[in-house]
Amino acid sequence: MVGASGYTGEKLLKILAGHPRVEVAFASSRQHAGRSLSDVFPEIALGGAPLCFGEPDPGKICAAAEVAFLALPHGESAKIAAPLLASGLRVLDLSADLRLKDRAVYREYYGVDAPGQDLIDAAVYGSPETNRGALAGARLVAVPGCYPTSVLLALAPALAGGLVDPASVIVSSASSPTGAGRKVEAAYLFAECHENMRAYGVVGHRHTPEMEQELSRVAGEGVTVQFVPHLVPLNAGIHTTVVASCRGAMPGQAALDGLYRDYYRGAPFVRVCAGRLPEVRRVAGTNVCEVAARADARTGRLLFFSAEDNLVKGAAGQAVQCLNIIMGWKEEEGLVL
Amino acid sequence: MVGASGYTGEKLLKILAGHPRVEVAFASSRQHAGRSLSDVFPEIALGGAPLCFGEPDPGKICAAAEVAFLALPHGESAKIAAPLLASGLRVLDLSADLRLKDRAVYREYYGVDAPGQDLIDAAVYGSPETNRGALAGARLVAVPGCYPTSVLLALAPALAGGLVDPASVIVSSASSPTGAGRKVEAAYLFAECHENMRAYGVVGHRHTPEMEQELSRVAGEGVTVQFVPHLVPLNAGIHTTVVASCRGAMPGQAALDGLYRDYYRGAPFVRVCAGRLPEVRRVAGTNVCEVAARADARTGRLLFFSAEDNLVKGAAGQAVQCLNIIMGWKEEEGLVL
Amino acid sequence: MVGASGYTGEKLLKILAGHPRVEVAFASSRQHAGRSLSDVFPEIALGGAPLCFGEPDPGKICAAAEVAFLALPHGESAKIAAPLLASGLRVLDLSADLRLKDRAVYREYYGVDAPGQDLIDAAVYGSPETNRGALAGARLVAVPGCYPTSVLLALAPALAGGLVDPASVIVSSASSPTGAGRKVEAAYLFAECHENMRAYGVVGHRHTPEMEQELSRVAGEGVTVQFVPHLVPLNAGIHTTVVASCRGAMPGQAALDGLYRDYYRGAPFVRVCAGRLPEVRRVAGTNVCEVAARADARTGRLLFFSAEDNLVKGAAGQAVQCLNIIMGWKEEEGLVL
Amino acid sequence: MVGASGYTGEKLLKILAGHPRVEVAFASSRQHAGRSLSDVFPEIALGGAPLCFGEPDPGKICAAAEVAFLALPHGESAKIAAPLLASGLRVLDLSADLRLKDRAVYREYYGVDAPGQDLIDAAVYGSPETNRGALAGARLVAVPGCYPTSVLLALAPALAGGLVDPASVIVSSASSPTGAGRKVEAAYLFAECHENMRAYGVVGHRHTPEMEQELSRVAGEGVTVQFVPHLVPLNAGIHTTVVASCRGAMPGQAALDGLYRDYYRGAPFVRVCAGRLPEVRRVAGTNVCEVAARADARTGRLLFFSAEDNLVKGAAGQAVQCLNIIMGWKEEEGLVL
Repeated sequence: MVGASGYTGEKLLKILAGHPRVEVAFASSRQHAGRSLSDVFPEIALGGAPLCFGEPDPGKICAAAEVAFLALPHGESAKIAAPLLASGLRVLDLSADLRLKDRAVYREYYGVDAPGQDLIDAAVYGSPETNRGALAGARLVAVPGCYPTSVLLALAPALAGGLVDPASVIVSSASSPTGAGRKVEAAYLFAECHENMRAYGVVGHRHTPEMEQELSRVAGEGVTVQFVPHLVPLNAGIHTTVVASCRGAMPGQAALDGLYRDYYRGAPFVRVCAGRLPEVRRVAGTNVCEVAARADARTGRLLFFSAEDNLVKGAAGQAVQCLNIIMGWKEEEGLVL
Repeated sequence: MVGASGYTGEKLLKILAGHPRVEVAFASSRQHAGRSLSDVFPEIALGGAPLCFGEPDPGKICAAAEVAFLALPHGESAKIAAPLLASGLRVLDLSADLRLKDRAVYREYYGVDAPGQDLIDAAVYGSPETNRGALAGARLVAVPGCYPTSVLLALAPALAGGLVDPASVIVSSASSPTGAGRKVEAAYLFAECHENMRAYGVVGHRHTPEMEQELSRVAGEGVTVQFVPHLVPLNAGIHTTVVASCRGAMPGQAALDGLYRDYYRGAPFVRVCAGRLPEVRRVAGTNVCEVAARADARTGRLLFFSAEDNLVKGAAGQAVQCLNIIMGWKEEEGLVL
Repeated sequence: MVGASGYTGEKLLKILAGHPRVEVAFASSRQHAGRSLSDVFPEIALGGAPLCFGEPDPGKICAAAEVAFLALPHGESAKIAAPLLASGLRVLDLSADLRLKDRAVYREYYGVDAPGQDLIDAAVYGSPETNRGALAGARLVAVPGCYPTSVLLALAPALAGGLVDPASVIVSSASSPTGAGRKVEAAYLFAECHENMRAYGVVGHRHTPEMEQELSRVAGEGVTVQFVPHLVPLNAGIHTTVVASCRGAMPGQAALDGLYRDYYRGAPFVRVCAGRLPEVRRVAGTNVCEVAARADARTGRLLFFSAEDNLVKGAAGQAVQCLNIIMGWKEEEGLVL
Repeated sequence: MVGASGYTGEKLLKILAGHPRVEVAFASSRQHAGRSLSDVFPEIALGGAPLCFGEPDPGKICAAAEVAFLALPHGESAKIAAPLLASGLRVLDLSADLRLKDRAVYREYYGVDAPGQDLIDAAVYGSPETNRGALAGARLVAVPGCYPTSVLLALAPALAGGLVDPASVIVSSASSPTGAGRKVEAAYLFAECHENMRAYGVVGHRHTPEMEQELSRVAGEGVTVQFVPHLVPLNAGIHTTVVASCRGAMPGQAALDGLYRDYYRGAPFVRVCAGRLPEVRRVAGTNVCEVAARADARTGRLLFFSAEDNLVKGAAGQAVQCLNIIMGWKEEEGLVL
């Protein structure tokens, strides 16, 4: 585990500590170097000997572990992923470094050069529900972003079913401030977030190209997305609402529900809501994503909804779900939270 | 003041109690009949003799007051508005009864017959920023709904300026649970709302036709709206995000900002944000609505944002603002909260 | 499981559903009679056939189960406990009916007659950390109240060690509104609880005699308690602060910490904080109770602190912990939440 | 106004901006030097010319203003207070520098040397309800701390009436994180405070000697205080609970209520609750402090409660209340919030 000081890293450590088939052999955090795990995160009980945080040293990591999770800021992950991979470790990268297949797009949105094309090509996009086949046995996984996960799961069945005009997708998402990580900035102080809601990054948010790439993959044609993220006073969770124009005849509600149930049959972490809409409180603290679809005959538009825990299904939990799949374990192992 | 037991009625009483030109002569509440005001709302200090709550009796009200505010459930307001108006009182109705000009639409969305056409025709839609001319001297005001206010103020300058494709308007709003009134239902218990977010009423919400009617008035052409409301854990506030396609050439950001500043010049309660986006915390407890517009050249769409206090600018405060205008008082009187 | 509609019942169902040695054979709820479990609580996945809620019928329960959990209002639990017990089931009662050994005190605080003395005498007080010996093999358990658990765990080591003047104990606790159950009353609406804090039940709260009884048991002498509960805007949690006069020489901080560590050695669900104080966020959603003690040499007083999840360690989790002990299972089974 | 970047300074600016007899001539903030007021605090509308933040220069301040409010960290206030006072300005200091009369105590609790004894002697403790006589015409005011205000108002009538054993006072307070100021530290991030509660500074909190000094003044004898502060997830507010032993015969509830009503007769900002207990939501955003007293005949103890807005009555509002009194204005001027 590399990069354990942020909210995602902490959540990942917690899940791994309770995973019956995993032993955490190493945890690094520059910020907490030299401190013990139980000192920094007293609520995470690691069965074995008390681990200490240390500098991320690829040599040490390779000696200690078979799988590496990277929860580092973008730009830093790829640097360490390459040597780990070369040494035979499987790598699950929670940063954005390996998600975008097009290096020019990465450069445009992140302002720095993308990792090498070889590394990018080797990375499998870790969306179990839409990309399960590619994950089995994967050696390098780009774990999806929190917003893209919520949008992809809300839309995938309808896009795969050809129901949606791919130029009409409009997304309004709202996230817990923890999505920004444990950034010590005035904007994330309690009294600036509590009793507050605001949009941010409304033009050119970095998750937009990731959404377009993956929605296009699922749709089999180019999808463009208008993405508007918001901050809401939640400790955990993302709620996503998607509006799109219907292509072809408007489906009935029963047909829509059936389409979603069928698409997610066998997906233990997607709950298709029938007769109600997704709620953050029903997924917070779990790896479940709730989804629902509705048709508005008056306007000819389709509405899609999802709710997930941004740090679990939107990050650490999905990473562990990917681990279970690439190792051939039961998908729910360690994830009944 | 008729109907003082809900959140809106309570807020209205509080504002009126501090208004330098208003004396509250009468407050009714079936729920609290017989109790004194200071017992039910200890934080509302009415200077004069302690008022008692009583049954709403038109005769008594007419004897005591010159202006009546009605904060009753829809269906009940219109019944009492007619006799009060006939007796010479000015009436400001905070219910939905008199907002929709088309009685068939009212019947469709509210499931009961609308009030008489005469009463409806007599009512002025109480949106000071878009309808100031019609308000001066008005005898009957339909105070706008909370969501419609947030959408109208976000869009009015762009619609009036012809920038928006009127068939493309998609609205995502998020409100405090107080918008539902002081309903004692399990869905509004603390632990069902806190750490939760969900969409509701996503097809056919009652505020949709009100939005379409008023946006069309401002645009001078028919506007249709896709409206998706959400509940968020705020004690006060509505945040609204609107996405629409641009008609004609994409304006630059400076031109957009200028258009909004010009439209709201002289409007003391609209704050046009430049260089930042509206935030609920900057308007909660006040009669101010913050608005902003952004252009996304990549998609050819325009984005509009607003934040307001749902019980103040979205209800009680706007009612008092209307009062100030119809009485010829300073618009800010009693509203510097 | 009898009484599954409240917050405690829901939490209990959730924990039992994930317990590897438990199968939920029956769940009753008058409020939800006839509905399926997955309809009422979609986030609770019971592996087997979908259960339906039904009326609590002792005959049916005995046929289906070996252990019964009762999460009913006080007064109702004891009535159903007796026949279940007589039929050979083990019974864990989460109500207050069987906690007070003195029937006169029950009558004074609850206003109704207590259950029969035989039933009361048969009930073991389910506090694993202070009463483990009595629990092994127990057939009837009175699961402790949420506040008494937080106070007992904060004070037990100091009382057992004779450090505290038993007439000087002053307790200030603060709880999530969920402690009141899923009561649909105006006082528990979101906007009445959020951004609010208040004391309540400050003289004669029903948990006071339970605290005094159990603290006296641990101390081996009569302890009186001044108990002041408060409501705070938390979805989960109780924080308790106890102030008491030191009897005898003031202990040093290291000695205090040592006393607490020794007392709770082998207790997997109590975390003694050294160098920091208990925090609700570190225990919410878990069965852990954090405790700490401090000495104030200036005033000669000792301070004790605890934090727990009121619905888990304060109710459902502690009930399952008791189950594990009476069945001879590992104490943490199904409780690594 | 010197020191306008913290939560207290912001609140003070907001109140002063709406005060009918005050013109804000100068506002300084090192952090925001060079920016305009409307840029930093868009919701504060100062009627006149737009003010700019600047470095605090005593010469400039004296030229511009008749009264100076200092909202600086302790240690800095006193340095600037002296020259301002010497130049003939009235000074209201919101820091702790001038509150403690005993320089040795200041040194012990703050770790630095106290200001000169002359300056300290000249400062009037700005508690209008307990020290009104000394305030009229005062030139230098030490505005009380937030916690001491809440404790003083809860206890003053009982102490003045001789009802309380002065060695028995135990205080448990809970505050919004804004009490710590706008400190950009990890401990005050949204997700560390939300859904959390914890005690802090439980031995030797700096407000303890201030409470003891002022309670002793009111009691006419030495009072010692056991003070335990907590953090709760509120944007605004302090709730205080005090437990103390009754001296002499236990008063009846009516006598207690009468004592409190009499003591606060003529105090427009203290609301004595009868038949209910103080609630933060009833005072948040206002300058009102709610108080209540209860007798527990079973234990022989008295209980006292208060609720206030920590930034208003606990800081900025009380400062303006002091201003109104020293200038001979109506006490409520500009404070009907």
